[in-house]
Amino acid sequence: MHKYMKEAIKEALEGINNGYGGPFGAIIVKGGKIVGRGHNQVVLNNDATCHSEIQAIRSASKNLNTFNLSGCTLYATGEPCHMCLCACLWANIDKVYYGCTIEDNEKIGFRDNKFNSLLGGRDKLKDYLVCIDRDECLKLFDEYNKIKNKTIY
Amino acid sequence: MHKYMKEAIKEALEGINNGYGGPFGAIIVKGGKIVGRGHNQVVLNNDATCHSEIQAIRSASKNLNTFNLSGCTLYATGEPCHMCLCACLWANIDKVYYGCTIEDNEKIGFRDNKFNSLLGGRDKLKDYLVCIDRDECLKLFDEYNKIKNKTIY
Repeated sequence: MHKYMKEAIKEALEGINNGYGGPFGAIIVKGGKIVGRGHNQVVLNNDATCHSEIQAIRSASKNLNTFNLSGCTLYATGEPCHMCLCACLWANIDKVYYGCTIEDNEKIGFRDNKFNSLLGGRDKLKDYLVCIDRDECLKLFDEYNKIKNKTIY
Repeated sequence: MHKYMKEAIKEALEGINNGYGGPFGAIIVKGGKIVGRGHNQVVLNNDATCHSEIQAIRSASKNLNTFNLSGCTLYATGEPCHMCLCACLWANIDKVYYGCTIEDNEKIGFRDNKFNSLLGGRDKLKDYLVCIDRDECLKLFDEYNKIKNKTIY
């Protein structure tokens, strides 16, 4: 497995084990160094915008003291929804590697795919959004499914 | 002018006058009461995700203590980009009224329209995204243009 995806999985596990939200983590890397980390905190923060990628962008922006994350790569355990994808574009993130697909997310009750069908355009970003380590990231869903009385958003 | 758009314009002016970021403000209303407010703070916070709509969603979520903003209406001086639009969908916001269009934003140097051409799907949301008070909101751009040495993101 890619070493940075392993770090993104660690982030996701932190969120799952604490019941903070969906089973998703993200890492931002610049020049071979991790500059931002995030896991989903929608339930913890009572804030629908707290996806792992948004949290990682906020973290990297704080660490680098800039809204311009050009030269950075994002590794996310789940394919970014349109909110997160457009956030990556605004932040000038160079490239995104993701594990589970948006269709996978639907199987555990998330609406990313519904929004994706509505908005679309992902076919034009095949070089920007690249799937890696899907099987490893899918194991996070098993961990997530073990939680009883989950809050779905 | 619609009374809530007037409030959104007040928010935008606060951001413009303080040099916090782009000339955009947003208000969230539930049951005839303003429950969230926000203006663009990308430059202030060094964070590309701090668009006015995201800030207003965070504010309303905090005030209502929930990530579920169903029953809420958002009034934004500028048409939401894909990040903000998808954030509204995740937050279950009922309807969005906006002033300036994404094409307008391009005239003052913002990339919303570039991202919109890439992603698309906005034609399917004509009942969800409704343009009002465009001329009044466009006046904010004149205020913004008066600022010298602006930071564009």
